[in-house]
Amino acid sequence: MKAYMKDVMQLTSTGVRFIDQTQLPLCLHVAETWDYRVVIEAIRQLRVRGAPLLGISAAYGITLAARAFSHLDHSEFHNVMHRVCDEFAASRPTAANLFWAIGIMRTILDQDSSVLEIVRYIEQRALALHADDAARCDAIASFGSNIIPEACGAITHCNTGALATGGRGTAFAVLLEAHERGKRIHVYADETRPLLQGSRLTMWELQQHGIPSTLITDGTAAMLMRRGDIAVVITGADRIAANGDCANKIGTYALALAAHAHALPFYIAAPLSTVDVTLASGDAIPIENRSSEEVTRISGTSIAPAGTDVYSPAFDITPAELISGIISEAGILRPPYTDSLTAALNA
Amino acid sequence: MKAYMKDVMQLTSTGVRFIDQTQLPLCLHVAETWDYRVVIEAIRQLRVRGAPLLGISAAYGITLAARAFSHLDHSEFHNVMHRVCDEFAASRPTAANLFWAIGIMRTILDQDSSVLEIVRYIEQRALALHADDAARCDAIASFGSNIIPEACGAITHCNTGALATGGRGTAFAVLLEAHERGKRIHVYADETRPLLQGSRLTMWELQQHGIPSTLITDGTAAMLMRRGDIAVVITGADRIAANGDCANKIGTYALALAAHAHALPFYIAAPLSTVDVTLASGDAIPIENRSSEEVTRISGTSIAPAGTDVYSPAFDITPAELISGIISEAGILRPPYTDSLTAALNA
Repeated sequence: MKAYMKDVMQLTSTGVRFIDQTQLPLCLHVAETWDYRVVIEAIRQLRVRGAPLLGISAAYGITLAARAFSHLDHSEFHNVMHRVCDEFAASRPTAANLFWAIGIMRTILDQDSSVLEIVRYIEQRALALHADDAARCDAIASFGSNIIPEACGAITHCNTGALATGGRGTAFAVLLEAHERGKRIHVYADETRPLLQGSRLTMWELQQHGIPSTLITDGTAAMLMRRGDIAVVITGADRIAANGDCANKIGTYALALAAHAHALPFYIAAPLSTVDVTLASGDAIPIENRSSEEVTRISGTSIAPAGTDVYSPAFDITPAELISGIISEAGILRPPYTDSLTAALNA
Repeated sequence: MKAYMKDVMQLTSTGVRFIDQTQLPLCLHVAETWDYRVVIEAIRQLRVRGAPLLGISAAYGITLAARAFSHLDHSEFHNVMHRVCDEFAASRPTAANLFWAIGIMRTILDQDSSVLEIVRYIEQRALALHADDAARCDAIASFGSNIIPEACGAITHCNTGALATGGRGTAFAVLLEAHERGKRIHVYADETRPLLQGSRLTMWELQQHGIPSTLITDGTAAMLMRRGDIAVVITGADRIAANGDCANKIGTYALALAAHAHALPFYIAAPLSTVDVTLASGDAIPIENRSSEEVTRISGTSIAPAGTDVYSPAFDITPAELISGIISEAGILRPPYTDSLTAALNA
């Protein structure tokens, strides 16, 4: 395991430590807090991000709150803690894993146990969620690496590595595992505007692991496919609807369309905690809109005229018919996803 | 005419004045020089850019050189000036209009006239090229505005307005003309990474003309199409091959693929000076690679880890089969382009 991976997110006896991802790649700063509201703010500002890591962040943040409020009587504790869960649920709207983790925590809160027992259960469950996500990452990497050709160029979007999960990553871990198995892969990372998770985070993680890599702007991917340099495209997902439609970082849909036009396989890699069977299709997935400034300013410098109107959805929907397979910890799911997702979730 | 349009590029009795486009939108700085090498540097650094404007810039730059070397005898003047033309030809490799204008200037240099006469001819021809491009823009705007629906959303890429041409623009002028004719259009401008001509220049020009507009990242266009907000996509071109394949700013091909997937019309607007009939298809168009720093640094701030490998082609090729029509000063050309381009060029 690379040194940075243990610092991505960690519950300690006194608080939570996490890498402030907005400062990468210029600075590897590990923040520490015992205040659950700092964790919520870190989620809002993308200091921690990535769908699986958002679930773990919420679980750890709720643990901090449970510790802080453990002096309350049972009924007050129960009420306060459900309000804390509401606050975490309002932090970002799209990632399924966030709501999944909060749901698990709410179930523990409703148990008929003493406050101190509940605090201990919450803490144990949060640590277990983290360890569990790491194991899911390993399974995804193992299944997924089989579909990566022996020597190829691969495009990925946004960041799906250790910085986005509780383990080695999702789509990133598939590419990492292929590299470690000796496959000669070259990863082309979309820079991923507006927040540049590709250039800032994925290029950094690729370097940490010594994987041959090249940074491209988001608009360059289609040209690389046309040149014949690409054999496979693989990304993560923030929420997967029952029919297999996937919400992922804005730009993913254009990438999937381009892959389709060049008859290239397009894979999603995500743990089953990303699946939301309550939504029939991607049209029902709530899409977060981000602030104008994330597009019009970079590092404090304005790059657009004052008064510019901006439309900046954080995610888009890739319809199931463009997805060759969903690489999960239960194996590679194939269309029709309504069947394969149901089977995997009920296994 | 908006006040800024006369400053985009202007030949005076003592030199050339031009808006330094790298300083927009923060600063409207008009540079002035009598040194042709400053014009070449301005082309290299994209202080002036846009395929039609590059032709005019080369013509004006060659005029400055002709004035500066008018004291030489005929044979020396002839040799020196052809070397100056070589220098302009080496400034940027893709825009056809640049080579077209240089070719016209070389023909004048080879005339059997006195040095002072040739200097005068070059100057007159450069001014005529500028006026001619403005007229081509007007014709493109007039023909093109007919294909814009009465009320619609339109996506454009990079900058194709007055800042890119000798007149009102190409694709931009089509949208401007539709707006001035009272059509209720809303323009979505791709920011156009890496050099952000969309956010810096197109959004600024849209504001100057009061056209309703929204800035999006390049990866957002496909999602807007899927939402049903877009009726037409229109861009410029830097070089058009004999078969209608078009080189244009990187990201155009992905945009054309997305338009095709949503059954939306995708138009190119460009003067016939952009056509290079010596090239059978887009595969033969030389594509400029730009420096890593244009992707890894913004306003002096590093946004990628040190040592990042970058692939940054300035242009990509959109194949003719994805292009609904080429809006030229001779009308809207339709497939098969081998026929319609030949007919327009020989008219």
